[in-house]
Amino acid sequence: MSLRGLGVEPRCRCIETERQRIGRLIESVELFPPTPHCEDTEIIATLKRTGQEICLDTTAPWVKKVIEKILSNRKP
Amino acid sequence: MSLRGLGVEPRCRCIETERQRIGRLIESVELFPPTPHCEDTEIIATLKRTGQEICLDTTAPWVKKVIEKILSNRKP
Repeated sequence: MSLRGLGVEPRCRCIETERQRIGRLIESVELFPPTPHCEDTEIIATLKRTGQEICLDTTAPWVKKVIEKILSNRKP
Repeated sequence: MSLRGLGVEPRCRCIETERQRIGRLIESVELFPPTPHCEDTEIIATLKRTGQEICLDTTAPWVKKVIEKILSNRKP
């Protein structure tokens, strides 16, 4: 469980982040900018098939590459 | 209405994209990579307060800057 409950609780959503490179499993990626309630950006991936939501490490190079790929119209 | 219904319909989600620079209104941004049912990446922003979902132009420089800002731990 790397995610707190859904909803708009006034705190960070992610407790821990995925260490493995799971780019190919990703169906979509959601970016949450810093807020007064959570000072760091959070990135949550939704996985194909299972729909599972996984927090990603915003500082991991592979995560940035996944996002760059998506922005370049390519599959992660 | 720039979004088709939610759910996992086998087609693109966005019909049209926002032209104005709405970076400051954005609460979160979701990236959908290309799929067999939609050949181009789609970017959907959720707005603060209203929660409205807006499709963004993946090729617009301001959209890329918003995403870069978020990845750099800054507010869009």
